[in-house]
Amino acid sequence: MIVYVDMLSEPCQSILAFLRLSEIQFETRLINLGEKEFLSPEFTKINPFQEVPAISHGEYSLNESAAIVTYVAETFGVDNHWYPKDLKLRGRINAYLHWHQMGVRFRIGDYLMKKIFLPMFYGKDPMSEQEEQAVRSVALEVVSDLEWILSETGYVARTPTITIADIFAYSEVSNLKAVNIPLAESSRAKKWFDEIASLPLIQELQREATQFYSSIATPISN
Amino acid sequence: MIVYVDMLSEPCQSILAFLRLSEIQFETRLINLGEKEFLSPEFTKINPFQEVPAISHGEYSLNESAAIVTYVAETFGVDNHWYPKDLKLRGRINAYLHWHQMGVRFRIGDYLMKKIFLPMFYGKDPMSEQEEQAVRSVALEVVSDLEWILSETGYVARTPTITIADIFAYSEVSNLKAVNIPLAESSRAKKWFDEIASLPLIQELQREATQFYSSIATPISN
Repeated sequence: MIVYVDMLSEPCQSILAFLRLSEIQFETRLINLGEKEFLSPEFTKINPFQEVPAISHGEYSLNESAAIVTYVAETFGVDNHWYPKDLKLRGRINAYLHWHQMGVRFRIGDYLMKKIFLPMFYGKDPMSEQEEQAVRSVALEVVSDLEWILSETGYVARTPTITIADIFAYSEVSNLKAVNIPLAESSRAKKWFDEIASLPLIQELQREATQFYSSIATPISN
Repeated sequence: MIVYVDMLSEPCQSILAFLRLSEIQFETRLINLGEKEFLSPEFTKINPFQEVPAISHGEYSLNESAAIVTYVAETFGVDNHWYPKDLKLRGRINAYLHWHQMGVRFRIGDYLMKKIFLPMFYGKDPMSEQEEQAVRSVALEVVSDLEWILSETGYVARTPTITIADIFAYSEVSNLKAVNIPLAESSRAKKWFDEIASLPLIQELQREATQFYSSIATPISN
């Protein structure tokens, strides 16, 4: 199995975490954003949506990070607490992962995009105060939603143990820092966040992402 | 199994279609939007996100339409062309359903909300021409995306036969009419749309939705 990623993408980090946690054998191909490798005919054959992450597995290819989790789990017989075979637990994880797109990734990502990426990389004017208030309030809703979602079991998919859903959520929630939204010191969200941040695998992925950031001037594409 | 729906919701229609197509036994509870039944403590216990669709199955409950599809398929052993057991086909269907949230539902729904629902039900001013152009161009992207997505096999999950992904897509794409975006007569999207619209089950669900609309003055609740 080959996994196509760029280390700047949150869903890519989540997929890499899942594959390593589940001890799946795979090769990584770094897709160079700067050189627009994701638009190449070769990559378009693997993922016509021209986005990472994607996998190829023999003749088969698949996109969408959460769909990749399920495919890998079923194909390689994954049954760990990150993505248990139990249908009721897996149902809860899948429900979170479907909600995640709009509920967490979009609501934080939209603020990040408009506040930081559009002005920095696309020369857009900064938002007006009124525009910023609107997108900021949407991102703040994620923080209050996390408080009640975590109230049931301490994990986002309302499962008794930490799962891959928490990793997906963490990858996005960690961007709140960049838009100056702190998690309150005694909140459930802060406790949850710190637990995930302290996992050795998460720290390892963060080191790799930092290396990738700092090497971006010199293209990697092994 | 009890399925909580309101007939005005596209994902609810898709779930009802899937359960009937797969010949699953279930009871329906209509959740009365007007009476805000989705905010009741009883329903909040079933789905803390206070949205339909949701299911309860014994002591267990689950939300998110696409997660419900997988749970029902695994629990009741569904293996039909709507949601085949084959992992590679199911992977493609799941990938579509994850993409669907932002890729189709949000892009059409946002226009529908701002153009029709906000002015009609929430007393908002109509959009300025410039605002409308922006949200309309996003909805139009769905139409051009459909053309290339359908180019592979004629179905949205790029599967050899029609699947539940097409039903989910159809439920949203049928709203394009309300915002005056027609599907071009000789397009792949039009051929695909007409095939689904002609399914007896889809016509049956549309009749039920129409009945529900017209009965909304007199509350129904199961």
